[in-house]
Amino acid sequence: MTHRAKVRVRYAETDQMGVVYHANYVVWMEVGRVEFARAAGLPYKELEAAGFFMAVIEANCRYLAPALYDDEIEVETRVDKATPRSIDFGYTFWRGAQKLGEGRTRHLFLNRDLRPARLPAEYHGVFGIT
Amino acid sequence: MTHRAKVRVRYAETDQMGVVYHANYVVWMEVGRVEFARAAGLPYKELEAAGFFMAVIEANCRYLAPALYDDEIEVETRVDKATPRSIDFGYTFWRGAQKLGEGRTRHLFLNRDLRPARLPAEYHGVFGIT
Amino acid sequence: MTHRAKVRVRYAETDQMGVVYHANYVVWMEVGRVEFARAAGLPYKELEAAGFFMAVIEANCRYLAPALYDDEIEVETRVDKATPRSIDFGYTFWRGAQKLGEGRTRHLFLNRDLRPARLPAEYHGVFGIT
Amino acid sequence: MTHRAKVRVRYAETDQMGVVYHANYVVWMEVGRVEFARAAGLPYKELEAAGFFMAVIEANCRYLAPALYDDEIEVETRVDKATPRSIDFGYTFWRGAQKLGEGRTRHLFLNRDLRPARLPAEYHGVFGIT
Repeated sequence: MTHRAKVRVRYAETDQMGVVYHANYVVWMEVGRVEFARAAGLPYKELEAAGFFMAVIEANCRYLAPALYDDEIEVETRVDKATPRSIDFGYTFWRGAQKLGEGRTRHLFLNRDLRPARLPAEYHGVFGIT
Repeated sequence: MTHRAKVRVRYAETDQMGVVYHANYVVWMEVGRVEFARAAGLPYKELEAAGFFMAVIEANCRYLAPALYDDEIEVETRVDKATPRSIDFGYTFWRGAQKLGEGRTRHLFLNRDLRPARLPAEYHGVFGIT
Repeated sequence: MTHRAKVRVRYAETDQMGVVYHANYVVWMEVGRVEFARAAGLPYKELEAAGFFMAVIEANCRYLAPALYDDEIEVETRVDKATPRSIDFGYTFWRGAQKLGEGRTRHLFLNRDLRPARLPAEYHGVFGIT
Repeated sequence: MTHRAKVRVRYAETDQMGVVYHANYVVWMEVGRVEFARAAGLPYKELEAAGFFMAVIEANCRYLAPALYDDEIEVETRVDKATPRSIDFGYTFWRGAQKLGEGRTRHLFLNRDLRPARLPAEYHGVFGIT
């Protein structure tokens, strides 16, 4: 189960090397997993409204080829592993058929007090938790 | 009453034109007024802890010469006008003796419900409210 | 002649007040004018490839109501004034029928040496220069 | 050989969870290695002026405790491994004695054409290349 979200590179996201500044891929991963969840039926803001947060505890990115200004990037997102306590997402960044990079993030589910929480069963299907 | 805060230009703040992307000056204005308030005895987070926010309702910036990577910029901040309800800050951006730009922001004081509020008298001195 | 571009609010763009951090509207103005130009037949990167830059010399924004996480914002962009030397854009930010704010930017056309330049006649139509 | 650089958390860097948005640590790593190099005698802009870039090919971050608005963060930076072709930096984020997170970045040295290059011997000492 994967989802592809589109991101158009903003001038704001470039740097003086003439390419996208690397930290922006981490923001694009957010776009990827949020659109993944929306496509699976759960806008992330509804999860927060219900009192649950997906806090990032780890983020990794490998850069293979630079993204450029105005590129239309596709962020392919998948769930690598999910339990009621935590979830791992994997990402691949594409410009057309060219792979620009890969990323991973690991998240803990937290409650409103930002303490570790158990994701209620009604949300398990969204993330493929079995 | 003015205050000068220093900002070192980050690579992340440049764009592919080889200069600082213009929206970052608006962030530097935040640094300027926060350091102004700290120098006047009020870390902004204490104001928030007391239940008051300075919401931005207007921001303006004029760009005279581009800031460059690794430049040490001085953000000179002053209060242009202040009442218990609202406050106007003025900013000048310097690289040494060269003026790089000027800005202004207008703020409303809000309470925890993000409704307009009257700033308590104990904070008036910080902003020169008479 | 106006154009409406859509921007989905990213978590990265929010701040701890629970609303969009104000400097991000300045980035959205970039999205607005770039999509305006694309809709008029000129991707901005083609203008740069031809050796012309639209440097921002002034940016202004008024905030009427806060944009929130995951909002779908429409950035309505129009040309307020244009000559072969400079151009003024105007922007209105909408969430559905609610106006969230308004902005303006002023630009100089620059050449590859980042010196003021005269925009060639072939591009005048894009910006309504007569 | 380690270096500690200070970063004051900006409001712009927080998100609506009330903590620092995770991608900003990746920017702080840039601050860390740039200040590391400056302390070792090489402002990064001089390296670029000489025609060499340190392109990021991998970035990783683990988050242990959230950084908060106005925190004064120390970014401790060290070289984990360095050759004339590539360099690995390691980072630890501190708020006082509390470790907030850890990161790593891997870089290739590139020339002006953004092709892999061999770092000249005169710069080896800065990064502990033997």
